[in-house]
Amino acid sequence: MTAGRRPQMNTRQLILALDYGGTKHTAAIIAVGEHTWLAHQRVYSPPGADGNYDRATALNMARALLARTEGELVAIGVSFGGPVDATQGIVRLSHHVPGWENTPLRHQLHNEFDVPASVDNDANVAALGEWKFGAGQGCASLLYVTVSTGIGGGWVLSGRIFGGADGMAGEIGHIVVRPDGMECVCGKRGCLEAEACGPAIAKKMRARLQAGKTSEAFETSEVWASITGESVARAAQSGDALAGQVMDDAAQMLGAGLGGAINLMNPQRIVLGGGVTKSGERWWRIVRETARSHALPQMRVEIEPAMLGDDAPLWGAVALGESLL
Amino acid sequence: MTAGRRPQMNTRQLILALDYGGTKHTAAIIAVGEHTWLAHQRVYSPPGADGNYDRATALNMARALLARTEGELVAIGVSFGGPVDATQGIVRLSHHVPGWENTPLRHQLHNEFDVPASVDNDANVAALGEWKFGAGQGCASLLYVTVSTGIGGGWVLSGRIFGGADGMAGEIGHIVVRPDGMECVCGKRGCLEAEACGPAIAKKMRARLQAGKTSEAFETSEVWASITGESVARAAQSGDALAGQVMDDAAQMLGAGLGGAINLMNPQRIVLGGGVTKSGERWWRIVRETARSHALPQMRVEIEPAMLGDDAPLWGAVALGESLL
Repeated sequence: MTAGRRPQMNTRQLILALDYGGTKHTAAIIAVGEHTWLAHQRVYSPPGADGNYDRATALNMARALLARTEGELVAIGVSFGGPVDATQGIVRLSHHVPGWENTPLRHQLHNEFDVPASVDNDANVAALGEWKFGAGQGCASLLYVTVSTGIGGGWVLSGRIFGGADGMAGEIGHIVVRPDGMECVCGKRGCLEAEACGPAIAKKMRARLQAGKTSEAFETSEVWASITGESVARAAQSGDALAGQVMDDAAQMLGAGLGGAINLMNPQRIVLGGGVTKSGERWWRIVRETARSHALPQMRVEIEPAMLGDDAPLWGAVALGESLL
Repeated sequence: MTAGRRPQMNTRQLILALDYGGTKHTAAIIAVGEHTWLAHQRVYSPPGADGNYDRATALNMARALLARTEGELVAIGVSFGGPVDATQGIVRLSHHVPGWENTPLRHQLHNEFDVPASVDNDANVAALGEWKFGAGQGCASLLYVTVSTGIGGGWVLSGRIFGGADGMAGEIGHIVVRPDGMECVCGKRGCLEAEACGPAIAKKMRARLQAGKTSEAFETSEVWASITGESVARAAQSGDALAGQVMDDAAQMLGAGLGGAINLMNPQRIVLGGGVTKSGERWWRIVRETARSHALPQMRVEIEPAMLGDDAPLWGAVALGESLL
């Protein structure tokens, strides 16, 4: 150490990570370069909550966590469950609650905490989280896909979120994989989401049962209404033939969509998260085999399970915050 | 000018651009920063030519052009019509002639001319050409697609070719747009290429005629064998109903594929080149409308004709060369 220079105060640099979900919001604090939470809290919105309520709740939570954590806040990363103009840091809207329209969230957080902030949508941020801390580490090009109540995704190219021209890149759920297929919420037919997400799996199972097909797992029509993607997956894993056909079909559709993405972008790796990916080895095998059969032979097909689960957006928010330093 | 410093010799800096096609090879020289050829030559390979012959011919041509052009060669950019390991500058093979397997073309050119060289495959290089000098200028993200005897493409992201993990990104021709569709050379069914390229259009027209459909443009079965994508397009533009249906169907398939690419990557612009794009306003309208109907509403759909025609790879080779300076 140079003579005469005072030892630097050992002030920890802190990142605040915020994850605004549809009905739950999480705040967490981490020290730069570390991998464990110094503080972490999750709150659930009551029915009828709007954007104002959610923003105030999350801010209060963040303030409280910061107040009890030693160190200096240096950056904020935010995952938002809805479309975001990441360049401007403006939330376009929430699909879950009113009152988020055109919220300048980055600006508000900067005003509140006086540090730089970065905001992006949850699929993009989750992709960044898996890239930095999870199953996509070291990949020059990563497609992250979540297969859950819907199908969405995000790209990380050269260590940065690739959002495309309108911040919407990664909407693999709305690629058509079966032109005469199931109706999708977007108005088209046979979108990947309408063929392979959890509710789509349940819907296909119900349709087959209503058409007279039989299943030991779902024998009586009383239980049909409560069928979920998860219950179909469980039935398939227990040997129910009809459920097995439905799961195989959904896995094939997903594999076809991923194979198309591979042909188009030749990513180094694809990481799959979301509840449907818990459907067992057979589901994974069919997804991978179908993707392989769709991709050109010279292209790698590397499809791996996500590692961070529901925390992927929060970890991604940490990575977003760190990218500002 | 600083006193005592000699005026700099006004030596022009030159880029050598090489385009190795299947059966024709082009060499051209341009001064850095200028947009007109100082020298330009194209040679056609005789039947039976192999990689050795093609390499020697192109080298001789390049040497001759350089010998008669004033200036100092500073970089070489190369477009090759086949798979290339761009990172290593190694041609993997040619699909047209033998003797190109694993050719270290970048190394050979560097040895020969003692300047840095960059080599990539023609679709990628053409994409870069349209981005730098053609219809993609100023785009942060560009998908270039050529619709010709096949369908291929390339990406330019942030001003650089995006080749993906194996240099194969952009293979939009092998995305499946009609799962029960036409057989593709790749072994799948209903690939975009098998549904919308020139030979696919001809094949569909013949199949309809052979199935008993009638067309004024192709009345007698003697002419069926010589039907091409171009002749179907001409017949459609002249009002032939059956040819019109075939063209519309091909345009819809292309639009569906492009719409899928938009959902996945949200590019700022798509540029379409190749002979099939000369099929008239109706074809363009259907391509754009179908892509729009497939893409999510928040995403831009900007599909424009290529500007550089067959010279796109050569201009892209210039851009590759300039990227080395």
